[in-house]
Amino acid sequence: MSEQSGLLIREATPGDIGLILTLIKELAEYEKLTHTLFATQESMNEALFGERPVAEALVAYYDDEPAGYAIYFHSMSTFLGRAGLYLEDIYVRPHLRGKGIGKTLFSIVANIAVERKCGRMEWQVLRWNQPAIDFYEAHGAEPLDGWLTMRLTGESLSKLAKNS
Amino acid sequence: MSEQSGLLIREATPGDIGLILTLIKELAEYEKLTHTLFATQESMNEALFGERPVAEALVAYYDDEPAGYAIYFHSMSTFLGRAGLYLEDIYVRPHLRGKGIGKTLFSIVANIAVERKCGRMEWQVLRWNQPAIDFYEAHGAEPLDGWLTMRLTGESLSKLAKNS
Repeated sequence: MSEQSGLLIREATPGDIGLILTLIKELAEYEKLTHTLFATQESMNEALFGERPVAEALVAYYDDEPAGYAIYFHSMSTFLGRAGLYLEDIYVRPHLRGKGIGKTLFSIVANIAVERKCGRMEWQVLRWNQPAIDFYEAHGAEPLDGWLTMRLTGESLSKLAKNS
Repeated sequence: MSEQSGLLIREATPGDIGLILTLIKELAEYEKLTHTLFATQESMNEALFGERPVAEALVAYYDDEPAGYAIYFHSMSTFLGRAGLYLEDIYVRPHLRGKGIGKTLFSIVANIAVERKCGRMEWQVLRWNQPAIDFYEAHGAEPLDGWLTMRLTGESLSKLAKNS
């Protein structure tokens, strides 16, 4: 998919699940969110390569060393009236940063969005992660400050579901 | 799907696209976002009922009058390692509010999330829309204040894609 000066980026295969889980764990550590990490080999395999896949993944290697990954899925915008692309994760291992790996991963995902005629690409970033926000803004991304994300999970979700 | 005291909620069919577009326009007016509305009959039909549907829709009728709709799609959480459900829109016409229509729509979507083993349900709300935030919080939803949504669209998206 991309091969330049030691960098190889390709679509993930089932054989990459172990690597992706390792990298997700590293990302969770960086984000101080390991207490929210419940992904397993089985659940990730089901989500990416099961009967009804819900996301797609890219893996990056630098000089044959696993360097990072991106996971994305299709969203939809009713105002645009068409699909969008949601970037769930993009991650480059700390000791391999500054080599353009993140930029290339980001560009490839944008290219997939354009090729599939998605109206936009969206993702979320932790508000304290200013280096990431700067990186995204440098590429023309805009923060949606007026919107608040809400989440329903666990017992509250079950309870609401039971009322239907 | 749900029929109680004059309220009928069912899955949308291609014949509902015109109605859904009318309601999306009303929602855009309420949100002061009509300048961002580009959905058409064709694009909505493609998104909901095309070769590769990206979202699903429910429509609500109250005493045979079109009353509201919900549109949702599957997201994925890498930390949970499984699918989630993203509620793109939920809307009830102003003169039909206060009858439990929104609550029932919301519960049905939560039930779909639980039945499909989604780890969570997420959506976005305008920060100035306090009545909506109160409604969601009353049902156990939590605001993700620490996260910022970023969006890349138009020429910035095309430019980044070309660099891949």
